[in-house]
Amino acid sequence: MKEVATVILAAGKGTRLNSALHKVLHPVAGRAMIHHLLDSAAKLDPAKTVVVVGEYREQVQDALGTNVEYAVQEPQLGTGHAVQQAEPMLEGFTGDVLILYGDVPFVKPETMVSMLDRLHADDAPAVVVLGFRPPDTLRYGRVISDKFGRIEKMVEHKDANEAERACTLCNSGVMAVKGKELFELLSRVGNTNAQHEYYLTDIVNLANEDGRNCAVVECEDHREVTGVNSRAELAEAEAQWQEFKRAEAMDGGATLKAPKTVFFSWDTQIGKDVTIEQNVVFGPGVTIGDNVTIRSFSHLEGAEVEDGCEIGPFARLRPGSVMKEGSKVGNFVEMKKTTLGEGAKANHLTYLGDATVGSGANIGAGTITCNYDGYFKHQTVIGERAFIGSNSALIAPVKIGADAIVAAGSAVSRDVADGELRMVRAEQLVKPGWADRFHDAMKKKKAAAKKD
Amino acid sequence: MKEVATVILAAGKGTRLNSALHKVLHPVAGRAMIHHLLDSAAKLDPAKTVVVVGEYREQVQDALGTNVEYAVQEPQLGTGHAVQQAEPMLEGFTGDVLILYGDVPFVKPETMVSMLDRLHADDAPAVVVLGFRPPDTLRYGRVISDKFGRIEKMVEHKDANEAERACTLCNSGVMAVKGKELFELLSRVGNTNAQHEYYLTDIVNLANEDGRNCAVVECEDHREVTGVNSRAELAEAEAQWQEFKRAEAMDGGATLKAPKTVFFSWDTQIGKDVTIEQNVVFGPGVTIGDNVTIRSFSHLEGAEVEDGCEIGPFARLRPGSVMKEGSKVGNFVEMKKTTLGEGAKANHLTYLGDATVGSGANIGAGTITCNYDGYFKHQTVIGERAFIGSNSALIAPVKIGADAIVAAGSAVSRDVADGELRMVRAEQLVKPGWADRFHDAMKKKKAAAKKD
Amino acid sequence: MKEVATVILAAGKGTRLNSALHKVLHPVAGRAMIHHLLDSAAKLDPAKTVVVVGEYREQVQDALGTNVEYAVQEPQLGTGHAVQQAEPMLEGFTGDVLILYGDVPFVKPETMVSMLDRLHADDAPAVVVLGFRPPDTLRYGRVISDKFGRIEKMVEHKDANEAERACTLCNSGVMAVKGKELFELLSRVGNTNAQHEYYLTDIVNLANEDGRNCAVVECEDHREVTGVNSRAELAEAEAQWQEFKRAEAMDGGATLKAPKTVFFSWDTQIGKDVTIEQNVVFGPGVTIGDNVTIRSFSHLEGAEVEDGCEIGPFARLRPGSVMKEGSKVGNFVEMKKTTLGEGAKANHLTYLGDATVGSGANIGAGTITCNYDGYFKHQTVIGERAFIGSNSALIAPVKIGADAIVAAGSAVSRDVADGELRMVRAEQLVKPGWADRFHDAMKKKKAAAKKD
Repeated sequence: MKEVATVILAAGKGTRLNSALHKVLHPVAGRAMIHHLLDSAAKLDPAKTVVVVGEYREQVQDALGTNVEYAVQEPQLGTGHAVQQAEPMLEGFTGDVLILYGDVPFVKPETMVSMLDRLHADDAPAVVVLGFRPPDTLRYGRVISDKFGRIEKMVEHKDANEAERACTLCNSGVMAVKGKELFELLSRVGNTNAQHEYYLTDIVNLANEDGRNCAVVECEDHREVTGVNSRAELAEAEAQWQEFKRAEAMDGGATLKAPKTVFFSWDTQIGKDVTIEQNVVFGPGVTIGDNVTIRSFSHLEGAEVEDGCEIGPFARLRPGSVMKEGSKVGNFVEMKKTTLGEGAKANHLTYLGDATVGSGANIGAGTITCNYDGYFKHQTVIGERAFIGSNSALIAPVKIGADAIVAAGSAVSRDVADGELRMVRAEQLVKPGWADRFHDAMKKKKAAAKKD
Repeated sequence: MKEVATVILAAGKGTRLNSALHKVLHPVAGRAMIHHLLDSAAKLDPAKTVVVVGEYREQVQDALGTNVEYAVQEPQLGTGHAVQQAEPMLEGFTGDVLILYGDVPFVKPETMVSMLDRLHADDAPAVVVLGFRPPDTLRYGRVISDKFGRIEKMVEHKDANEAERACTLCNSGVMAVKGKELFELLSRVGNTNAQHEYYLTDIVNLANEDGRNCAVVECEDHREVTGVNSRAELAEAEAQWQEFKRAEAMDGGATLKAPKTVFFSWDTQIGKDVTIEQNVVFGPGVTIGDNVTIRSFSHLEGAEVEDGCEIGPFARLRPGSVMKEGSKVGNFVEMKKTTLGEGAKANHLTYLGDATVGSGANIGAGTITCNYDGYFKHQTVIGERAFIGSNSALIAPVKIGADAIVAAGSAVSRDVADGELRMVRAEQLVKPGWADRFHDAMKKKKAAAKKD
Repeated sequence: MKEVATVILAAGKGTRLNSALHKVLHPVAGRAMIHHLLDSAAKLDPAKTVVVVGEYREQVQDALGTNVEYAVQEPQLGTGHAVQQAEPMLEGFTGDVLILYGDVPFVKPETMVSMLDRLHADDAPAVVVLGFRPPDTLRYGRVISDKFGRIEKMVEHKDANEAERACTLCNSGVMAVKGKELFELLSRVGNTNAQHEYYLTDIVNLANEDGRNCAVVECEDHREVTGVNSRAELAEAEAQWQEFKRAEAMDGGATLKAPKTVFFSWDTQIGKDVTIEQNVVFGPGVTIGDNVTIRSFSHLEGAEVEDGCEIGPFARLRPGSVMKEGSKVGNFVEMKKTTLGEGAKANHLTYLGDATVGSGANIGAGTITCNYDGYFKHQTVIGERAFIGSNSALIAPVKIGADAIVAAGSAVSRDVADGELRMVRAEQLVKPGWADRFHDAMKKKKAAAKKD
């Protein structure tokens, strides 16, 4: 393969999204659309990556940083015009140029490679277009081509005659062109059309007029070129991605009780014989080992879960959660920056933040690690096999020793030694008959209140 | 437009719903079906609204009160007979009558207006019928009409010949008729049919026989006339409403990560650049500002959420919850009749009931406002920038001052002054080695228990 | 009906499931697939049930125990070969044999009866095949038959001519054969095919060659013979089952706000006028009375809920939960082996384990029953109309009397008598100005930390 440069169009902010955030930065599966695309393009190991920015360009530049080069298109006069802005960045570049769109995030690396391969086939096309066959061709321009994939004509739907409309191969706009030809072709593109825009597509017809071949490569699945122009289409792109990921997880040996109710993140990793019940949401950064059960209504982000763990229902793992082998987190439990040791359990109504829990420890219902003093976060360290009684508050920084017991309802502010019992509990104040008298008084008061 | 009266049929309780609640009172998106319809009809500013009731009529009358008039149909002898019962209420009424159905709740005001306009077109139809084109015409009577919408014939599916069955325009039963003609036509409707019922539809054929025109108005979307006769159809009506509302929210600039898992209420209001994650349920009375994030597994009812707030995951906002700008409610937190001040936070395992929390205050994990003494509810007032330590109980009525600190694990029953520390905590009772001895004893006991 | 034996094929572990658990043991709606099938077959009251096992056979035998007989197929040489292994178990058996598949779990008892009836019809077929008409016939062998259901030919899709492919009646593999004929036919089946396997289907063609009739019975709904060969198909089988159950629940008079988000278990029982909101999951063993409302995000297993109860949102009922009439469990509340008395309430952030709560009692927010000492579980008994103040810990074994009051924030370790007040609370330590000084110091520290 020749050296490759990618030009990624991202100038339009996406008015129809009705958002203060640039379209290409809207996330799918927890990652900005343009990052999905850049990741795929990175598989080609491109010599240059030029992102054409325009509206809201600071947002795009902030998000992508200095890993790419930027060309500014201002004002926006069409796709051809957009690519032209990359000319200075590609001066002297003699490799191939792949033109992509920041809002068409799912083009596969394999497809990109096919396009570049086709560019160097024996019939030496000037331009390679990525075609696709959508279920409904209505809105799309057609690629009229022969059986060798040589393009006879590119035609807009509205300009197409009946025979051309019968053709179901549509133009995605994604193109591969030899670098040394691209800008010469573009310089000849005009704007004598209804919108007065410079269309990238015109380079195909120009090359054809020159007597050059142009070719089409068809993507296997039309969903590769799904584009996003509204929040509804964003939701559809997300749904499409999830559908794919769920199938992959099931093929890999995970049981999804109700696949449509499980939502993965772009980087979720799942082991074998994992059971995921209904309604589980994965944020970024989650790794799940083998034989793990994730019960309904669980929410995981940035968590590492080892083999044989059980999570939920109603569990929340926040970033920095580590569950060692066979540990268990139950209902209404939140973990953050906490390691739960092998076989340790936190089964009910608990908050573990900035903590280390030893193996075999048992965290009682209603335990709270008081990790924050309003200014700083502090650590709680709980020893192996320690038993934290229910409704206890562990006031960090604090250390509970191995085999230690904290009595139920204790607010522990000083370290507890190994094998020690710590109890923080006032005297049991007993007032016989007091409640009966209270009830009598209150019933009278309530009755009086109703009369008023 | 002429003066309008609406007649709404709601006599049948809906046997197939298998319910002790009248069909038209079953809610869609949190509001009784008949209220959806009355709301749409109210846009016409009707001079009279007559609801024809029969079975379970007390329920309908309790729900609708004195804003409408009631006609009683007892026994129920068909739709024509039902409308006849409204004659006394419409005596002397010379405007137009629109006939609607309590279990066909989604007819749009625009459609109603179209029908009334058509009633006064130059060809002066006696009756205007609302037609629709369903995906499956099988069960429906057909409206055979010419290109001007003039009805040639109304025909039941079972009586239709092949040509008539090929017609896909169906009869919804919704009609507009001039008031001074309606009851004369109805008086001539007979019941010589299999069910011995008086069918409203017959007035069209009677008018035709008189040599009068009748006309059909077609609704744009057949789902406007979705009817509900079973719980399954109720669920479909709900799904249809939700689908519409989700699209509207996305068009308005909200991101719905998984639209199918977000459930709105009839009156939910959503700002711009709001992100709603998977599995969020809105009950009635919720208003959401701009730039709000609602994370997964959140449940909101009667809540006012200002700009820039963050909610969930696993948050529950009950009626009377007010979140001021930039405030945050986290996991396993419940709010009720509580105002959370600007930038205030209640992030974990907390119950805030009947409380006012000052701006910038921090409510620690496991905080409970003890607002109920078994008889009365009491207020908790928390000052600006106050810090409530984890696992505290605030025993209302109680006031925590500005900048005050409540130490973790405290049950506070008396007011805390501004800038004061309140700590309610017993001595730390230390028993070295006690836990070790306990473990030894218990292990023996457990072993013994197993032997038995 | 003659005496019946069932032969259930369960030798293949299901490689495509990519699991350490045998395919037929993967659950649908909380119950192993093969148990669904055995339950249906049990309606025939079979004299013998032979399960043909092979790979992972210990797992199948552990799961099914001694209620069935086992034949071992090792190695696995095809379906015909599998059934042959049951010959010793059926020696001398003169009734009918029904051949079923452990991974085709939804064949209805009525369908099985139809097949057996057909086996004894006047035309005396040697074999009765269960046919079905799938939406997509592509992969399936066809059953070519006449209008009397007499089979002319069984043909694989790949071997079928155009006319045969136009036939949409497919072979499910499920068969009924007279016991005294089955093994004679099987003994003549060869393996001269691409896979070198012995195909059960061949007995039909062999019987035909003998001049015997064979017949096909068509199942009403093709989903009866849904087979499971991958996790994706397992998820589809689950979805299919849920779809059926939801429709049944709605027909029975339950309102499901969003049916697709409600997940039942195989044995869930639901009363009349029950409302189930969005996102509710039922595990095994749940019974729900009439007029119960289950709010969103609730999770129930092994729970008995009487009339008029209200559950959730965000409630979790674990096995052994009993809710007496009109009781209420609210958000972030977990119950386990606990009976909640008539009209009693546990509305917020509570754990009730191994407890009995009297009628009319009120369990305050944040109450925890400390039922576990690390070795044994202990009981908590709460009397009628008792009031447990918020954030209390009840350290079991403990008994709270009728009408007693436990003050908020108390850790109660000794019994409380009827009508008594128990308060366990330390002195309120007041430090005026301390918080102000703390804030000043911390702000300086924080500023210093930032400088570093």
